Amino acid sequence: MHNIKRHRLEQFSDGVIAIAITLLAFELKVPHLSSTDIESSLMQILVLLPTLLTFILSFVTIAILWVNHHQMTEHIDTLNRRIIWSNMAFLMFLALIPFATRAIAENPYHSLSVATYGFVLLCTSFSFSITHLLIHRKINKHITLHSKLIERSLVGPIVYVCAIVSAFNYIPIAYALLLIPPIYYFLPKKSQG
Amino acid sequence: MHNIKRHRLEQFSDGVIAIAITLLAFELKVPHLSSTDIESSLMQILVLLPTLLTFILSFVTIAILWVNHHQMTEHIDTLNRRIIWSNMAFLMFLALIPFATRAIAENPYHSLSVATYGFVLLCTSFSFSITHLLIHRKINKHITLHSKLIERSLVGPIVYVCAIVSAFNYIPIAYALLLIPPIYYFLPKKSQG
Amino acid sequence: MHNIKRHRLEQFSDGVIAIAITLLAFELKVPHLSSTDIESSLMQILVLLPTLLTFILSFVTIAILWVNHHQMTEHIDTLNRRIIWSNMAFLMFLALIPFATRAIAENPYHSLSVATYGFVLLCTSFSFSITHLLIHRKINKHITLHSKLIERSLVGPIVYVCAIVSAFNYIPIAYALLLIPPIYYFLPKKSQG
Amino acid sequence: MHNIKRHRLEQFSDGVIAIAITLLAFELKVPHLSSTDIESSLMQILVLLPTLLTFILSFVTIAILWVNHHQMTEHIDTLNRRIIWSNMAFLMFLALIPFATRAIAENPYHSLSVATYGFVLLCTSFSFSITHLLIHRKINKHITLHSKLIERSLVGPIVYVCAIVSAFNYIPIAYALLLIPPIYYFLPKKSQG
Repeated sequence: MHNIKRHRLEQFSDGVIAIAITLLAFELKVPHLSSTDIESSLMQILVLLPTLLTFILSFVTIAILWVNHHQMTEHIDTLNRRIIWSNMAFLMFLALIPFATRAIAENPYHSLSVATYGFVLLCTSFSFSITHLLIHRKINKHITLHSKLIERSLVGPIVYVCAIVSAFNYIPIAYALLLIPPIYYFLPKKSQG
Repeated sequence: MHNIKRHRLEQFSDGVIAIAITLLAFELKVPHLSSTDIESSLMQILVLLPTLLTFILSFVTIAILWVNHHQMTEHIDTLNRRIIWSNMAFLMFLALIPFATRAIAENPYHSLSVATYGFVLLCTSFSFSITHLLIHRKINKHITLHSKLIERSLVGPIVYVCAIVSAFNYIPIAYALLLIPPIYYFLPKKSQG
Repeated sequence: MHNIKRHRLEQFSDGVIAIAITLLAFELKVPHLSSTDIESSLMQILVLLPTLLTFILSFVTIAILWVNHHQMTEHIDTLNRRIIWSNMAFLMFLALIPFATRAIAENPYHSLSVATYGFVLLCTSFSFSITHLLIHRKINKHITLHSKLIERSLVGPIVYVCAIVSAFNYIPIAYALLLIPPIYYFLPKKSQG
Repeated sequence: MHNIKRHRLEQFSDGVIAIAITLLAFELKVPHLSSTDIESSLMQILVLLPTLLTFILSFVTIAILWVNHHQMTEHIDTLNRRIIWSNMAFLMFLALIPFATRAIAENPYHSLSVATYGFVLLCTSFSFSITHLLIHRKINKHITLHSKLIERSLVGPIVYVCAIVSAFNYIPIAYALLLIPPIYYFLPKKSQG
């Protein structure tokens, strides 16, 4: 089990990520435009706006995770059980992102759905960080973990915890916090972790 | 991030495109044929015809994008951030094509749904052209862009803009315009761009 | 466009076929078992039987197409436009098989749905045969087509035409005919075509 | 047909497994939270708990099958018809796991749905074991089968048979039994089979 090659894990992960990211758009519901009057129809479409914005947020978040996932696995050749299962947990939580996106689309102004979205992303982000640290430790056996890498790994989980707490107090702050991790991880690293 | 290999981007893009193209057919709704009378049942199926034609249009459009996407990435080995994210935007808009196809299937004679379809294809086509130009500039650093390549890149976006405008005036013209880009890009290039 | 490598076409085809074959099972509807009485619940499940049998028939048909698709592309390295687009047509019709399977599941005893299923398989089979002949001609330029290969290529389309005709006369015969091509193509070839 | 390369079968299998595992999450239904009262909403979400647990069970079961599938195909280069079709049967039953998961989510306390889930997993597990034995025999022609490998191969099918029987007597025991095979196959093998 320990000798699964990097290539296989990447191929499987790419498959799961590609499906999850494409299914996001599949969940968008098309309104039946009963009136041919354009103004009243535009109103029907404006109702879709929060759904569309959530779609874009989820798409960008998954896209960034994919880019970072690739960078992460670049320097490793064989994998151990811990890395495989930590990566599997990451994929499981990532596969729940379309579900969490639907939850927000269905109830955009409800604390519980925003908190659910934050919770799924917290788990995704946390399992990603764990996988990253495990891979880093396997490659650089003799080197202590850069504090920088740990710092970077903690930003996502901490911000998502704050977003979950905010969801129960003032929802707009929760939404604002959900934007931070994609922006932070989108920016290139200064030093290769 | 800049050193993701071409192979990886292709594998991920192929995954997203394959899923989007297969989901198109998944959206086709099956009518429940209540009567065993063949003539009245045929009527129920004829109602599906616009949906089927839209399915074929979307399928062919995505198929051509896939063929051109492959040709585009053939001569490049490493990628930079701009190419990766421009390609990501292309995949995001492409993932919306099944949604736009559903929008037309639901409201085939409504200006807004035809304009939405045109808009999604405009964004897909535009982000594809940007990716193409970025890749071309990375390979041929010292060569000025062929005016031919820019011309070819602009055809899709311009025609889709015209289709969106037509959708609000006379819908049949919008449909006719939507047929042009697939035909144009289906034809082989005279000189390699 | 003519220099797309075999590997790319296979990867894309594998993706589409894998998605179509997995979506087949996704279409199976789960009945809500209201009664805890096992006998009356079994009745609810027995109603699913034709759906399940159609699922198995479609799954096996696609599986055989995949196996033969692989064998077909084994001896070729570069592709021309005709092969790419003939293969694309094959994928388009194959992507419609889940739709046709749903049509039968919804109306198992209706001529039109059985004929639709036959028609989609006729197109899939025919475009597969065309792709096969095109690839064969590209590899063996100087050799005339084996009459054997043409014979083998015609079996599927001809049987499906018969199934369509039977669907409008006596449906059980149509079902029986739909079983023949999978069985025929499942059997190994005597001489490599 | 006998000379399909390992790489192809793996790529196709990876595709089917990745889609099936991602579709699991796609089936989770989002409740419409009518009340903004958090307590009454939490009740609505608690109802989802059995569905979520089944999702996790199915995800982990498929994940383990994927890991073991990879280990299994590692030492083989060419495949024969029997291995291909035995693997195809495995994929067909695996593609039914999302359906079986939905059946449990819809009727969590009904004997028939639990038995259906057990039956799909029995078939998946059994076809996996057959594929494993066929591959093992192809590699080690002159060596008799390790009794250990056969033992290990039989654990899954036997436990699933017990789960099906329990489903008709006392459902909680059936659920407990369904947990055993994932745990058993999760543990690393002592000797390479």
